[in-house]
Amino acid sequence: MKFYGYWRSSAAYRVRIALNLKGLSYDFVPVNIAPDFSEQLSADYLSHNPEGRVPAVETEKGVLGQSMAILEWLDETQPTPPLLPAERWQRARCRAFANTIACDIHPLNNLSVLRRLKSDFGASDDQTKRWYQDWIGRGFGPLETIAAARNTDFIFGDAPGLAEICLIPQMANGRRFGMELTEFPALCDIEAKCFELQAFALARPENQPDAVA
Amino acid sequence: MKFYGYWRSSAAYRVRIALNLKGLSYDFVPVNIAPDFSEQLSADYLSHNPEGRVPAVETEKGVLGQSMAILEWLDETQPTPPLLPAERWQRARCRAFANTIACDIHPLNNLSVLRRLKSDFGASDDQTKRWYQDWIGRGFGPLETIAAARNTDFIFGDAPGLAEICLIPQMANGRRFGMELTEFPALCDIEAKCFELQAFALARPENQPDAVA
Repeated sequence: MKFYGYWRSSAAYRVRIALNLKGLSYDFVPVNIAPDFSEQLSADYLSHNPEGRVPAVETEKGVLGQSMAILEWLDETQPTPPLLPAERWQRARCRAFANTIACDIHPLNNLSVLRRLKSDFGASDDQTKRWYQDWIGRGFGPLETIAAARNTDFIFGDAPGLAEICLIPQMANGRRFGMELTEFPALCDIEAKCFELQAFALARPENQPDAVA
Repeated sequence: MKFYGYWRSSAAYRVRIALNLKGLSYDFVPVNIAPDFSEQLSADYLSHNPEGRVPAVETEKGVLGQSMAILEWLDETQPTPPLLPAERWQRARCRAFANTIACDIHPLNNLSVLRRLKSDFGASDDQTKRWYQDWIGRGFGPLETIAAARNTDFIFGDAPGLAEICLIPQMANGRRFGMELTEFPALCDIEAKCFELQAFALARPENQPDAVA
Protein backbone atom coordinates (compact mmCIF):
# COMPACT_ATOMS: atom_id res chain seq x y z
CA MET A 1 0.00 0.00 0.00
CA LYS A 2 1.14 3.53 -0.78
CA PHE A 3 0.43 6.25 1.73
CA TYR A 4 0.49 9.88 0.55
CA GLY A 5 1.00 12.22 3.46
CA TYR A 6 2.73 15.21 4.96
CA TRP A 7 4.37 15.28 8.36
CA ARG A 8 2.36 18.26 9.65
CA SER A 9 -1.04 17.28 8.23
CA SER A 10 -3.11 16.22 11.20
CA ALA A 11 -5.45 14.19 8.98
CA ALA A 12 -2.39 12.25 7.75
CA TYR A 13 -1.29 11.87 11.39
CA ARG A 14 -4.64 10.13 12.11
CA VAL A 15 -4.01 7.58 9.38
CA ARG A 16 -0.41 6.98 10.53
CA ILE A 17 -1.64 6.12 14.02
CA ALA A 18 -4.23 3.67 12.64
CA LEU A 19 -1.71 1.99 10.32
CA ASN A 20 0.62 1.56 13.31
CA LEU A 21 -2.13 0.24 15.60
CA LYS A 22 -3.07 -2.32 12.93
CA GLY A 23 0.59 -3.22 12.37
CA LEU A 24 0.40 -2.46 8.64
CA SER A 25 3.42 -1.52 6.59
CA TYR A 26 3.28 0.95 3.71
CA ASP A 27 5.35 2.90 1.24
CA PHE A 28 5.31 6.50 2.30
CA VAL A 29 5.09 9.09 -0.48
CA PRO A 30 5.68 12.59 0.92
CA VAL A 31 3.55 15.37 -0.57
CA ASN A 32 4.79 18.78 0.50
CA ILE A 33 1.67 20.89 1.06
CA ALA A 34 3.58 23.88 2.49
CA PRO A 35 2.57 27.06 0.59
CA ASP A 36 5.95 27.41 -1.18
CA PHE A 37 5.61 23.89 -2.62
CA SER A 38 1.88 23.00 -2.89
CA GLU A 39 2.75 19.61 -4.35
CA GLN A 40 -0.82 18.44 -3.65
CA LEU A 41 -1.90 20.60 -6.60
CA SER A 42 0.74 19.31 -9.03
CA ALA A 43 -0.51 17.58 -12.19
CA ASP A 44 1.22 14.41 -11.06
CA TYR A 45 -0.48 14.25 -7.68
CA LEU A 46 -3.87 15.31 -9.07
CA SER A 47 -3.64 12.38 -11.51
CA HIS A 48 -3.59 10.13 -8.43
CA ASN A 49 -5.97 12.09 -6.19
CA PRO A 50 -8.14 14.68 -8.02
CA GLU A 51 -9.17 16.25 -4.71
CA GLY A 52 -5.67 17.60 -4.29
CA ARG A 53 -5.47 16.86 -0.59
CA VAL A 54 -3.59 14.57 1.76
CA PRO A 55 -3.81 11.95 3.12
CA ALA A 56 -4.63 9.31 0.52
CA VAL A 57 -3.86 5.61 0.22
CA GLU A 58 -3.31 3.70 -3.00
CA THR A 59 -3.97 0.00 -3.47
CA GLU A 60 -4.41 -2.14 -6.58
CA LYS A 61 -8.06 -0.97 -6.56
CA GLY A 62 -7.21 2.71 -6.84
CA VAL A 63 -6.72 5.78 -4.69
CA LEU A 64 -8.79 6.59 -1.62
CA GLY A 65 -8.75 10.03 -0.02
CA GLN A 66 -10.48 11.45 3.07
CA SER A 67 -8.92 10.33 6.34
CA MET A 68 -12.21 9.32 8.01
CA ALA A 69 -13.13 7.06 5.09
CA ILE A 70 -9.61 5.57 5.13
CA LEU A 71 -9.92 4.82 8.86
CA GLU A 72 -13.29 3.06 8.44
CA TRP A 73 -11.90 1.11 5.46
CA LEU A 74 -8.85 0.02 7.45
CA ASP A 75 -11.09 -1.11 10.28
CA GLU A 76 -13.34 -3.12 7.94
CA THR A 77 -10.50 -4.80 6.07
CA GLN A 78 -8.11 -5.29 9.01
CA PRO A 79 -10.44 -5.68 12.00
CA THR A 80 -7.76 -6.40 14.63
CA PRO A 81 -7.34 -4.48 16.85
CA PRO A 82 -10.70 -2.76 16.37
CA LEU A 83 -10.88 1.04 16.18
CA LEU A 84 -14.50 1.11 17.37
CA PRO A 85 -16.24 -0.46 20.39
CA ALA A 86 -18.30 -3.60 19.72
CA GLU A 87 -21.56 -2.31 21.20
CA ARG A 88 -23.59 -0.19 18.76
CA TRP A 89 -24.46 2.79 20.94
CA GLN A 90 -20.84 3.03 22.10
CA ARG A 91 -19.67 2.80 18.48
CA ALA A 92 -22.00 5.68 17.68
CA ARG A 93 -20.71 7.75 20.62
CA CYS A 94 -17.12 7.06 19.57
CA ARG A 95 -17.85 8.15 15.99
CA ALA A 96 -19.60 11.28 17.26
CA PHE A 97 -16.58 12.17 19.40
CA ALA A 98 -14.29 11.72 16.38
CA ASN A 99 -16.60 13.75 14.13
CA THR A 100 -16.66 16.68 16.52
CA ILE A 101 -12.99 16.98 15.65
CA ALA A 102 -13.18 15.93 11.99
CA CYS A 103 -16.24 18.06 11.12
CA ASP A 104 -16.42 20.90 13.65
CA ILE A 105 -12.80 21.73 14.51
CA HIS A 106 -10.24 20.55 12.01
CA PRO A 107 -11.88 21.86 8.79
CA LEU A 108 -11.79 25.40 10.18
CA ASN A 109 -8.13 25.13 11.13
CA ASN A 110 -6.98 23.72 7.84
CA LEU A 111 -4.07 25.45 6.15
CA SER A 112 -6.18 26.28 3.07
CA VAL A 113 -8.72 28.06 5.29
CA LEU A 114 -6.13 30.04 7.26
CA ARG A 115 -4.59 31.21 4.00
CA ARG A 116 -8.00 32.24 2.76
CA LEU A 117 -8.66 34.31 5.90
CA LYS A 118 -5.47 36.20 5.15
CA SER A 119 -6.04 36.68 1.42
CA ASP A 120 -9.76 37.55 1.61
CA PHE A 121 -9.96 39.44 4.86
CA GLY A 122 -6.37 40.43 5.63
CA ALA A 123 -6.43 38.45 8.86
CA SER A 124 -3.42 39.24 11.06
CA ASP A 125 -1.37 36.49 12.72
CA ASP A 126 -3.06 37.34 16.02
CA GLN A 127 -6.54 37.12 14.51
CA THR A 128 -5.71 33.82 12.86
CA LYS A 129 -4.40 32.45 16.13
CA ARG A 130 -7.56 33.51 17.98
CA TRP A 131 -9.76 31.96 15.25
CA TYR A 132 -7.80 28.73 15.53
CA GLN A 133 -7.85 28.60 19.32
CA ASP A 134 -11.55 29.49 19.58
CA TRP A 135 -12.72 26.62 17.39
CA ILE A 136 -10.59 24.18 19.34
CA GLY A 137 -11.81 25.54 22.67
CA ARG A 138 -15.47 25.39 21.66
CA GLY A 139 -15.14 21.82 20.39
CA PHE A 140 -12.92 20.48 23.16
CA GLY A 141 -15.26 21.61 25.98
CA PRO A 142 -17.87 18.88 25.46
CA LEU A 143 -15.14 16.34 24.62
CA GLU A 144 -13.43 17.02 27.96
CA THR A 145 -16.74 16.31 29.74
CA ILE A 146 -17.01 12.96 27.95
CA ALA A 147 -13.39 12.02 28.65
CA ALA A 148 -13.65 13.03 32.32
CA ALA A 149 -16.77 10.86 32.82
CA ARG A 150 -15.13 7.67 31.53
CA ASN A 151 -14.40 4.68 33.76
CA THR A 152 -11.96 3.00 31.36
CA ASP A 153 -8.30 3.64 30.54
CA PHE A 154 -9.11 5.31 27.24
CA ILE A 155 -12.23 7.20 26.19
CA PHE A 156 -14.42 4.35 24.98
CA GLY A 157 -12.66 1.34 26.41
CA ASP A 158 -9.33 0.06 27.66
CA ALA A 159 -7.59 0.51 24.31
CA PRO A 160 -7.35 3.60 22.08
CA GLY A 161 -9.46 3.82 18.91
CA LEU A 162 -11.10 6.29 16.55
CA ALA A 163 -11.65 8.89 19.29
CA GLU A 164 -7.97 9.02 20.29
CA ILE A 165 -6.85 8.78 16.64
CA CYS A 166 -8.63 12.08 15.98
CA LEU A 167 -7.96 13.70 19.36
CA ILE A 168 -4.17 13.42 19.59
CA PRO A 169 -3.39 15.10 16.23
CA GLN A 170 -5.87 17.90 17.00
CA MET A 171 -4.17 18.48 20.37
CA ALA A 172 -0.83 18.70 18.54
CA ASN A 173 -2.37 21.36 16.28
CA GLY A 174 -3.59 23.30 19.28
CA ARG A 175 -0.15 23.25 20.92
CA ARG A 176 1.42 24.37 17.66
CA PHE A 177 -0.84 27.41 17.77
CA GLY A 178 0.16 28.30 21.29
CA MET A 179 -2.45 26.51 23.40
CA GLU A 180 -1.40 24.82 26.64
CA LEU A 181 -4.67 22.85 26.87
CA THR A 182 -4.36 22.70 30.68
CA GLU A 183 -8.09 23.49 30.94
CA PHE A 184 -8.71 20.03 29.48
CA PRO A 185 -7.07 17.73 32.09
CA ALA A 186 -8.90 14.54 31.06
CA LEU A 187 -7.87 15.03 27.42
CA CYS A 188 -4.26 15.68 28.53
CA ASP A 189 -4.36 12.48 30.59
CA ILE A 190 -5.54 10.51 27.55
CA GLU A 191 -2.80 12.13 25.45
CA ALA A 192 -0.10 11.10 27.94
CA LYS A 193 -1.41 7.51 27.92
CA CYS A 194 -1.39 7.42 24.12
CA PHE A 195 2.21 8.57 23.88
CA GLU A 196 3.25 5.61 26.03
CA LEU A 197 2.25 3.50 23.03
CA GLN A 198 4.64 3.08 20.07
CA ALA A 199 1.75 3.38 17.59
CA PHE A 200 1.16 6.98 18.68
CA ALA A 201 4.75 7.94 19.47
CA LEU A 202 6.09 6.80 16.11
CA ALA A 203 3.29 8.61 14.28
CA ARG A 204 4.14 12.05 15.72
CA PRO A 205 4.87 14.68 13.07
CA GLU A 206 8.44 15.29 14.22
CA ASN A 207 9.24 11.60 13.77
CA GLN A 208 8.37 11.52 10.05
CA PRO A 209 11.03 11.31 7.32
CA ASP A 210 9.78 14.51 5.66
CA ALA A 211 9.79 16.56 8.89
CA VAL A 212 11.58 19.89 8.75
CA ALA A 213 13.04 21.29 11.94
CA MET B 1 -37.00 8.24 19.02
CA LYS B 2 -36.77 12.01 19.36
CA PHE B 3 -35.16 13.97 16.55
CA TYR B 4 -33.84 17.46 17.30
CA GLY B 5 -33.52 19.48 14.12
CA TYR B 6 -34.06 22.70 12.25
CA TRP B 7 -35.64 22.96 8.82
CA ARG B 8 -32.72 24.83 7.23
CA SER B 9 -29.88 22.85 8.83
CA SER B 10 -28.40 20.75 6.05
CA ALA B 11 -26.94 18.29 8.56
CA ALA B 12 -30.46 17.76 9.94
CA TYR B 13 -31.70 17.39 6.33
CA ARG B 14 -29.24 14.47 5.90
CA VAL B 15 -30.70 12.67 8.90
CA ARG B 16 -34.31 13.29 7.76
CA ILE B 17 -33.55 11.63 4.41
CA ALA B 18 -32.02 8.59 6.13
CA LEU B 19 -34.92 8.23 8.57
CA ASN B 20 -37.32 8.35 5.61
CA LEU B 21 -35.30 5.84 3.55
CA LYS B 22 -35.31 3.46 6.52
CA GLY B 23 -39.02 4.04 7.11
CA LEU B 24 -38.48 5.10 10.72
CA SER B 25 -40.91 7.33 12.57
CA TYR B 26 -39.79 9.87 15.15
CA ASP B 27 -40.96 12.75 17.34
CA PHE B 28 -39.61 15.93 15.84
CA VAL B 29 -38.39 18.56 18.31
CA PRO B 30 -37.68 21.84 16.50
CA VAL B 31 -34.65 23.79 17.70
CA ASN B 32 -34.56 27.27 16.20
CA ILE B 33 -30.91 28.01 15.48
CA ALA B 34 -31.61 31.29 13.66
CA PRO B 35 -29.47 34.08 15.20
CA ASP B 36 -32.42 35.85 16.84
CA PHE B 37 -33.38 32.66 18.68
CA SER B 38 -30.23 30.49 19.15
CA GLU B 39 -32.25 27.86 20.97
CA GLN B 40 -29.40 25.38 20.49
CA LEU B 41 -27.52 27.32 23.19
CA SER B 42 -30.40 27.39 25.70
CA ALA B 43 -29.80 25.71 29.07
CA ASP B 44 -32.61 23.28 28.29
CA TYR B 45 -31.14 22.12 24.97
CA LEU B 46 -27.58 22.01 26.32
CA SER B 47 -28.81 19.66 29.07
CA HIS B 48 -29.75 17.26 26.27
CA ASN B 49 -26.87 17.94 23.88
CA PRO B 50 -23.86 19.72 25.45
CA GLU B 51 -22.40 20.41 21.98
CA GLY B 52 -25.19 22.90 21.33
CA ARG B 53 -25.71 21.84 17.75
CA VAL B 54 -28.37 20.15 15.65
CA PRO B 55 -29.16 17.51 14.61
CA ALA B 56 -29.30 15.06 17.50
CA VAL B 57 -31.37 11.98 18.22
CA GLU B 58 -32.51 10.78 21.63
CA THR B 59 -33.24 7.19 22.56
CA GLU B 60 -33.57 5.41 25.91
CA LYS B 61 -29.74 5.16 25.83
CA GLY B 62 -29.15 8.89 25.66
CA VAL B 63 -28.53 11.66 23.14
CA LEU B 64 -26.39 11.28 20.05
CA GLY B 65 -25.19 14.28 18.04
CA GLN B 66 -23.12 14.59 14.86
CA SER B 67 -25.05 13.74 11.71
CA MET B 68 -22.42 11.41 10.24
CA ALA B 69 -22.33 9.33 13.43
CA ILE B 70 -26.15 9.25 13.48
CA LEU B 71 -26.22 8.01 9.88
CA GLU B 72 -23.73 5.19 10.58
CA TRP B 73 -25.67 4.25 13.73
CA LEU B 74 -28.96 4.13 11.81
CA ASP B 75 -27.33 1.93 9.18
CA GLU B 76 -25.94 -0.47 11.80
CA THR B 77 -29.17 -0.76 13.80
CA GLN B 78 -31.64 -0.68 10.87
CA PRO B 79 -29.68 -2.25 8.01
CA THR B 80 -32.50 -2.24 5.41
CA PRO B 81 -32.23 -0.57 2.98
CA PRO B 82 -28.45 -0.15 3.33
CA LEU B 83 -26.89 3.30 3.08
CA LEU B 84 -23.51 1.90 1.97
CA PRO B 85 -22.54 -0.54 -0.80
CA ALA B 86 -21.77 -4.11 0.27
CA GLU B 87 -18.29 -4.30 -1.29
CA ARG B 88 -15.59 -2.81 0.95
CA TRP B 89 -13.73 -0.63 -1.55
CA GLN B 90 -17.03 0.80 -2.82
CA ARG B 91 -18.12 1.42 0.79
CA ALA B 92 -14.88 3.32 1.30
CA ARG B 93 -15.38 5.36 -1.89
CA CYS B 94 -18.94 6.17 -0.86
CA ARG B 95 -17.79 7.32 2.59
CA ALA B 96 -15.03 9.42 1.01
CA PHE B 97 -17.57 11.11 -1.30
CA ALA B 98 -19.79 11.88 1.70
CA ASN B 99 -16.85 13.16 3.75
CA THR B 100 -15.75 15.56 1.03
CA ILE B 101 -19.04 17.29 1.78
CA ALA B 102 -19.16 16.68 5.54
CA CYS B 103 -15.52 17.62 6.23
CA ASP B 104 -14.36 19.88 3.37
CA ILE B 105 -17.44 21.88 2.35
CA HIS B 106 -20.20 22.01 4.92
CA PRO B 107 -18.12 23.01 7.99
CA LEU B 108 -16.94 26.14 6.19
CA ASN B 109 -20.45 27.13 5.21
CA ASN B 110 -21.96 26.62 8.61
CA LEU B 111 -24.00 29.52 10.02
CA SER B 112 -21.66 29.86 13.01
CA VAL B 113 -18.70 30.30 10.66
CA LEU B 114 -20.41 32.85 8.42
CA ARG B 115 -21.35 34.88 11.48
CA ARG B 116 -17.78 34.72 12.67
CA LEU B 117 -16.47 36.01 9.32
CA LYS B 118 -18.72 39.02 9.78
CA SER B 119 -17.92 39.69 13.43
CA ASP B 120 -14.15 39.09 13.24
CA PHE B 121 -13.35 40.38 9.77
CA GLY B 122 -16.34 42.55 8.82
CA ALA B 123 -17.09 40.31 5.83
CA SER B 124 -19.65 41.90 3.51
CA ASP B 125 -22.59 39.90 2.14
CA ASP B 126 -20.80 39.67 -1.20
CA GLN B 127 -17.60 38.38 0.41
CA THR B 128 -19.55 35.83 2.42
CA LYS B 129 -21.34 34.66 -0.73
CA ARG B 130 -18.06 34.27 -2.61
CA TRP B 131 -16.51 32.36 0.34
CA TYR B 132 -19.53 30.06 0.39
CA GLN B 133 -19.62 29.47 -3.35
CA ASP B 134 -15.86 28.89 -3.64
CA TRP B 135 -15.78 26.08 -1.07
CA ILE B 136 -18.70 24.39 -2.79
CA GLY B 137 -17.14 24.79 -6.23
CA ARG B 138 -13.79 23.44 -5.11
CA GLY B 139 -15.36 20.41 -3.45
CA PHE B 140 -17.98 19.68 -6.10
CA GLY B 141 -15.47 19.52 -8.98
CA PRO B 142 -14.02 16.10 -8.08
CA LEU B 143 -17.47 14.86 -7.01
CA GLU B 144 -18.90 15.72 -10.45
CA THR B 145 -16.12 13.64 -12.05
CA ILE B 146 -17.06 10.66 -9.88
CA ALA B 147 -20.79 11.04 -10.53
CA ALA B 148 -20.25 11.44 -14.31
CA ALA B 149 -18.15 8.25 -14.47
CA ARG B 150 -20.84 6.06 -12.85
CA ASN B 151 -22.66 3.30 -14.73
CA THR B 152 -25.47 2.94 -12.20
CA ASP B 153 -28.65 4.97 -11.54
CA PHE B 154 -27.19 6.59 -8.45
CA ILE B 155 -23.58 7.31 -7.56
CA PHE B 156 -22.56 4.01 -5.97
CA GLY B 157 -25.35 1.71 -7.10
CA ASP B 158 -28.93 1.63 -8.23
CA ALA B 159 -30.32 3.08 -5.01
CA PRO B 160 -29.34 6.26 -3.16
CA GLY B 161 -27.23 6.08 0.00
CA LEU B 162 -24.75 8.02 2.10
CA ALA B 163 -23.35 9.90 -0.92
CA GLU B 164 -26.74 11.25 -2.00
CA ILE B 165 -27.78 11.88 1.61
CA CYS B 166 -24.91 14.34 1.93
CA LEU B 167 -25.00 15.68 -1.64
CA ILE B 168 -28.63 16.79 -1.92
CA PRO B 169 -28.66 19.02 1.20
CA GLN B 170 -25.35 20.59 0.17
CA MET B 171 -26.78 21.37 -3.28
CA ALA B 172 -29.77 23.01 -1.57
CA ASN B 173 -27.31 25.15 0.39
CA GLY B 174 -25.53 26.15 -2.80
CA ARG B 175 -28.77 27.18 -4.49
CA ARG B 176 -29.76 29.17 -1.42
CA PHE B 177 -26.53 31.13 -1.82
CA GLY B 178 -27.23 31.92 -5.47
CA MET B 179 -25.49 29.04 -7.27
CA GLU B 180 -27.18 27.50 -10.31
CA LEU B 181 -24.87 24.46 -10.24
CA THR B 182 -25.29 23.98 -14.02
CA GLU B 183 -21.54 23.31 -14.28
CA PHE B 184 -22.21 20.04 -12.41
CA PRO B 185 -24.64 18.23 -14.76
CA ALA B 186 -24.09 14.75 -13.33
CA LEU B 187 -24.78 16.00 -9.80
CA CYS B 188 -27.93 17.78 -11.06
CA ASP B 189 -29.05 14.56 -12.72
CA ILE B 190 -28.62 12.67 -9.44
CA GLU B 191 -30.51 15.41 -7.61
CA ALA B 192 -33.46 15.16 -10.02
CA LYS B 193 -33.56 11.37 -9.55
CA CYS B 194 -33.51 11.75 -5.77
CA PHE B 195 -36.46 14.16 -5.76
CA GLU B 196 -38.55 11.56 -7.55
CA LEU B 197 -38.32 9.60 -4.31
CA GLN B 198 -40.63 10.44 -1.38
CA ALA B 199 -37.79 9.94 1.11
CA PHE B 200 -35.94 12.92 -0.37
CA ALA B 201 -38.93 15.03 -1.36
CA LEU B 202 -40.53 14.87 2.09
CA ALA B 203 -37.21 15.72 3.75
CA ARG B 204 -36.78 19.04 1.90
CA PRO B 205 -36.42 22.05 4.21
CA GLU B 206 -39.54 23.80 2.91
CA ASN B 207 -41.64 20.73 3.78
CA GLN B 208 -40.78 20.77 7.48
CA PRO B 209 -43.26 21.87 10.16
CA ASP B 210 -40.88 24.57 11.47
CA ALA B 211 -40.23 26.07 8.01
CA VAL B 212 -40.65 29.83 7.72
CA ALA B 213 -41.60 31.31 4.37
